[in-house]
Amino acid sequence: MTPGVPAGAEVPAGRVAVLGLGLVGGSLARLLHARAADVVGYDADRATRAAAAAAGLRVADDVAGAVAEADVVVLAVPLRVMGAVAAEVAAAAPSGATVTDVGSVKGPVRQAVAAAGLGERYVGAHPMAGTEHSGFGASSADLLDGAPWAVTVEAPGTDPGRLAAVLRLVTGPLRGTAAVLTDELHDEATALISHVPHVLATQLLNAVAGAPVRDVALGLAAGSFRDGTRVAFTDPVRTEAMVTENAAWVAPALRKAVRDLEAVVAALETNASLTGFFHEADEVRTRWVPRRAGAGAAGRPAGTVVPLAGDWPVAVLERCAAGAVVTRVDADGVHLG
Amino acid sequence: MTPGVPAGAEVPAGRVAVLGLGLVGGSLARLLHARAADVVGYDADRATRAAAAAAGLRVADDVAGAVAEADVVVLAVPLRVMGAVAAEVAAAAPSGATVTDVGSVKGPVRQAVAAAGLGERYVGAHPMAGTEHSGFGASSADLLDGAPWAVTVEAPGTDPGRLAAVLRLVTGPLRGTAAVLTDELHDEATALISHVPHVLATQLLNAVAGAPVRDVALGLAAGSFRDGTRVAFTDPVRTEAMVTENAAWVAPALRKAVRDLEAVVAALETNASLTGFFHEADEVRTRWVPRRAGAGAAGRPAGTVVPLAGDWPVAVLERCAAGAVVTRVDADGVHLG
Repeated sequence: MTPGVPAGAEVPAGRVAVLGLGLVGGSLARLLHARAADVVGYDADRATRAAAAAAGLRVADDVAGAVAEADVVVLAVPLRVMGAVAAEVAAAAPSGATVTDVGSVKGPVRQAVAAAGLGERYVGAHPMAGTEHSGFGASSADLLDGAPWAVTVEAPGTDPGRLAAVLRLVTGPLRGTAAVLTDELHDEATALISHVPHVLATQLLNAVAGAPVRDVALGLAAGSFRDGTRVAFTDPVRTEAMVTENAAWVAPALRKAVRDLEAVVAALETNASLTGFFHEADEVRTRWVPRRAGAGAAGRPAGTVVPLAGDWPVAVLERCAAGAVVTRVDADGVHLG
Repeated sequence: MTPGVPAGAEVPAGRVAVLGLGLVGGSLARLLHARAADVVGYDADRATRAAAAAAGLRVADDVAGAVAEADVVVLAVPLRVMGAVAAEVAAAAPSGATVTDVGSVKGPVRQAVAAAGLGERYVGAHPMAGTEHSGFGASSADLLDGAPWAVTVEAPGTDPGRLAAVLRLVTGPLRGTAAVLTDELHDEATALISHVPHVLATQLLNAVAGAPVRDVALGLAAGSFRDGTRVAFTDPVRTEAMVTENAAWVAPALRKAVRDLEAVVAALETNASLTGFFHEADEVRTRWVPRRAGAGAAGRPAGTVVPLAGDWPVAVLERCAAGAVVTRVDADGVHLG
C-alpha cells in the first residue's frame, strides 16, 4: 500500500512482508493469507520456513527476498535480533516501504530500528493478544483476527502517510482496532496490564511450587489459581525478555505493588480494616467490562471521524490517550470509536 | 444418612439441610434437588427464601424447621454469623446429625462450631469452585457438579462415621472428589492458591484504576490483565472476609511475595539476570496441567481402596496429604485416586 493512495477498509494492504514466523508473526501471516492479502513470510529457522510453506504460506529464502517488493515490512522477531534484522531490511527494502513490528515494548524497538537508519519509516505496533504457547506450531489465523492493537508514534515527527498505512493494515484485512499512542504511554500502560501481571503470576506459581504443601495445593487449585497463574505457563524465556526489555516501567510499577502488599500485611497482622484496599477500584469494577478476545470495537460508543488532513495524527493521539480507538480508515478519514 | 449404614455412591445422602442459600448454598441445594436427594433449605433473607421456593426447592421458615429431621446439616452462612447459626442448630438438630459447612477457611469455622457444642459432630468441607458473582440469583446446579472438595478433620479425634457421611455426600449425589486434610494444611494451601491470588488480583486492578494512564490501559487490556484480575471482580465484601479470616496463613504468604518482588525490582534496576525467577517453577510448569472446572477425577492415576475399618481416617489423611483424593465410598471402603 502506498501512502496517499486511498484504500477501502477491506482492501488488502499491498505487499506485506512478515519477518519472523513465531506465534505472532505466524498468526499474522496466516490471517493475511486467509484474507487474500499479498503476504510473504520469512523465518531464520529452516524448519519453521518449511512448516509455513506446508501451511500454504508464501515463504522467502532470506530477508532480502521477503522485503524486495514490500509495501509494509513487519518485524516479528525478538528484540535481541531486532537491530540485525532491521539492518538487513534497510539494505534491501524499497525506500517507500513502511516498517512496523509486533513487539510488546515499543521504546526499545524504535531505538533499534532507528539505529539501522529506518527511524523515519517506522510506526510501532503491538497486538494485544497472545496465548501461553509459542512458535509457528501454535500460530493460527484466529489469534489476531479482530484483535485490539496499540500503534505507536513519536509525538512530533510522525509521517502521516506511514501511520495511515499501518492503521489501514490493522483495521482493514486484520479487522482489528488501533489505539494510537506514544511509545512512552504504551510502555507504561503495558507494564501495568501485561508485564506486572506476568511477574505476579510467576511469583504465585513459584510460591506454590516451593511450598511444603505443594501437592495438596496443586490438587485443590481451582479457578483463582488457574486464572492467576495462566500467563506463568507462557514460555519463561519470552516472558523474561518482555519484562526486562520494559524494566524502565516495570520496576516502578512493581515497587508500588510491594508497597501496597506491605500495607495489606500490616493490616492483617494488626486486625486493621482492609475495606479501603478491597474497594479502591469499585468505580472500575462497576464500569468496566473486560473485553473478550476478538470482540473488536463491539460495545464502544459511537465515534467521530478525523479527516486525513493537516496534523491529523496529533488529533488522533489526543483522542486515543482518552481511551478511543481507530476502527476504520477510509476516504472520509480516520474513524474513532 | 446414618453413620454406619452402608450407602452406594449414588444413593442420596438422607435428609440434607442447607442453611444459607447464597451462591454456594443455593448451588448445593439446587444440585441435590436435581439429583433427587431429600434436601431442605433455609436463608435468613425472606426474598431469598421466596426465590428458592420459586426455583422448586423445599424451603423451611426457620433454622429449627430446616434441621429438625436432618441427617447432614450444611452451614453455608458467612463466618461472622456462623456461631449464632451453629447455636440454633445445636438446639434443634437430632444428635445423630452430622454438621458440615462450605467455608473457604476451616480453622475458624471449627472454632465457631465447637463453641456452640457441635465440635464432635463437625466435619469441615470446602468446594473448590466459585464464580465472581454472589447470591442465590447467581447459583446453579452446575457450579458444584463434579467439583473437587477439601474435607477437613482433626488429626486425632475424628468420628469415622461422620467423616464417611460427608465423603458419601460429596462423592455420591454431588459427584465430586474429596481431599481429606487437617484444617491447618487446608488453610495454608488455600492461602497460596486462593487468598493470595485474590489479594494480588486486587492490587493489579487498584494499580490500573489509580494510574494516570488508566483509560489507555483499560482500553488495551487483553488476556493477561483479564485473567490476572478476574477474581478482583468478585464481591469485595466477600473477598475481604475470606482474606482476613485466614490472616494467619495469608500474611506470611504475602510477606514472601513482597520479598520475591523486591528481588525482581532489584534485578531489573541493576540489569541482573531474572532467569532463576522465571524458571523456578519449571518442574510444575511441565508436569501440572490445570484442572478444568468439573473435571472431577478425570486423569488421575488408578487408585487404591482403604477399607472402612480400624483407624481408616488416618490412612486417608496420609494419602491425601500426598495429593490423592477420595473418589467414592462404598461397601469396599474409601476409594482413592
